Amino acid sequence: MTAPSSSDLPGGRPVAAPAIRIERLAVIGLGLIGGSFALALRRAGAVGRIIGAGRSAKSAAEALEHGLVDEIAAGPGEAVEGADFVLVATPVGQMEAVFAAIAPRLSPQAVVTDGGSTKRDVVAAARRALGPALARFVPGHPVAGAERSGPSAAQAGLYEGRRVVLTPLPENRAESVERVAAAWRACGARVHSMDTAEHDRVLAAVSHLPHVLAYALVETVISDPRAELLWEHAAGGFRDFTRIASSHPEMWRDICLANRDLLVEEIDRYREQLERLRGMIDRGEAAALEDLFRRSASARNAWLERFNARARNSA
Amino acid sequence: MTAPSSSDLPGGRPVAAPAIRIERLAVIGLGLIGGSFALALRRAGAVGRIIGAGRSAKSAAEALEHGLVDEIAAGPGEAVEGADFVLVATPVGQMEAVFAAIAPRLSPQAVVTDGGSTKRDVVAAARRALGPALARFVPGHPVAGAERSGPSAAQAGLYEGRRVVLTPLPENRAESVERVAAAWRACGARVHSMDTAEHDRVLAAVSHLPHVLAYALVETVISDPRAELLWEHAAGGFRDFTRIASSHPEMWRDICLANRDLLVEEIDRYREQLERLRGMIDRGEAAALEDLFRRSASARNAWLERFNARARNSA
Repeated sequence: MTAPSSSDLPGGRPVAAPAIRIERLAVIGLGLIGGSFALALRRAGAVGRIIGAGRSAKSAAEALEHGLVDEIAAGPGEAVEGADFVLVATPVGQMEAVFAAIAPRLSPQAVVTDGGSTKRDVVAAARRALGPALARFVPGHPVAGAERSGPSAAQAGLYEGRRVVLTPLPENRAESVERVAAAWRACGARVHSMDTAEHDRVLAAVSHLPHVLAYALVETVISDPRAELLWEHAAGGFRDFTRIASSHPEMWRDICLANRDLLVEEIDRYREQLERLRGMIDRGEAAALEDLFRRSASARNAWLERFNARARNSA
Repeated sequence: MTAPSSSDLPGGRPVAAPAIRIERLAVIGLGLIGGSFALALRRAGAVGRIIGAGRSAKSAAEALEHGLVDEIAAGPGEAVEGADFVLVATPVGQMEAVFAAIAPRLSPQAVVTDGGSTKRDVVAAARRALGPALARFVPGHPVAGAERSGPSAAQAGLYEGRRVVLTPLPENRAESVERVAAAWRACGARVHSMDTAEHDRVLAAVSHLPHVLAYALVETVISDPRAELLWEHAAGGFRDFTRIASSHPEMWRDICLANRDLLVEEIDRYREQLERLRGMIDRGEAAALEDLFRRSASARNAWLERFNARARNSA
């Protein structure tokens, strides 16, 4: 993963030199994902100069202010000129326009990746818009959400121990895939690869569906005539359950649309389970309810132990 | 709330003497709720001797081991003999049997309260089983869940800044209500009172419904043929969303059954919202989705600020 180094920090902790060197990094989209990538690579000593392009003067100013980038380019096309590594980290709905803008200006040695939460749509957009650069585009998804967004939410440690899924294209050369993987590893992430469609199916179930469910719960409270009273009594369980409903609205709009066929399937699978559980409650089926709750709690606890162990091991 | 005291701790922090003194506290049910109540009152210096009664020899041994109680009685009836304060903290489905067991052995000066998450059923059980002691039974609900349960999960600080709802009966004397309120305040809680039916309606919406939704999501994953793959990719958002699905299965079985009419109503209100959201996704209604997500995020964030401010103010 990373080349071991014999040098020690003053505190005595061994450090590893990053296995990647990026001379000029272009980050298109200056939010949580792009900003944290820039900060993490900088901290790892893996990057020379960082050029950013954002949608607004405000996000550009914030990105400079928080030290995410060294300079702001006039647009995506300008940002990638001379860059040897490009991350596209806009909401997925904007990626095709970004690909079209950067395609003619990419240097021949640049590798391109993205940070989108859906992959079939991003791959389709890349096929339409990237032209010959497609072979150097390695689709990626850092599975490291947070309910905060924007340049000020970026943090160098966001990806530590987190999972990044790459869904390489048949056109990709192994060295492009390895370069993108090495960049994410330098950010502290664990890199996995997966089939594009499978990625979208799995993420629909474990990420997109829970977001939709959390939004629907907040909507249920908002639409209640007694909403004020309900908010007043909502407590810690409600807070954790709805954390993801504070996510970036535009990003989640794009994800829901990009993955809508698979997401609708997952919503329907969920509705069946909810219907079944509702029936048990309505009919007062004590034993069946307790069985279900016990099975759920034990499956979830078993998963949580593995999840926490993974996080510890990569920390 | 608490009487100010002129004495200072060595560290210089002013302390307040608790406004309540309990000579002999009986705690029936030695789990998170009952155990934390005992620890908190002990820490506040508000209690003399603590007698516990649990369902099993194992929970009794754990309660003694963790210092929750000074002694274990043979049963609920034995535990309340001579006690001036009684907390019933079993799952709500067991409370009627507990009330029947303690009713003939309560001393005339004892006040009784409970820690159940539903109140209509507990009040009905008390009316059937407590006899003349009903006037000294003040129903309560500490809104301080945690996904851990059992004696070893108990902690003195569980109720700090948390809300305790009392649903006093018309039969209660003001001094009984005040004594129960004072005990919870000594645990660091904020005490509110509410109508019994309104309590169950509000909690169905903000607590019982989210639990059911979280259980249904875990069940959706478990029932998926690709379950292993899904667990592997579940991350932080999934973890927080399903935290409450690790709650105590029997306790939640009882809550679902006790509050089933109102809970089914809330599930149905939720299903309508989910159906509406599913339609927007299925039809690709970008603007409507973004509006909904924006409204949700902003309502939830506004609530969270108030929630955190309340927690800070009472810390």
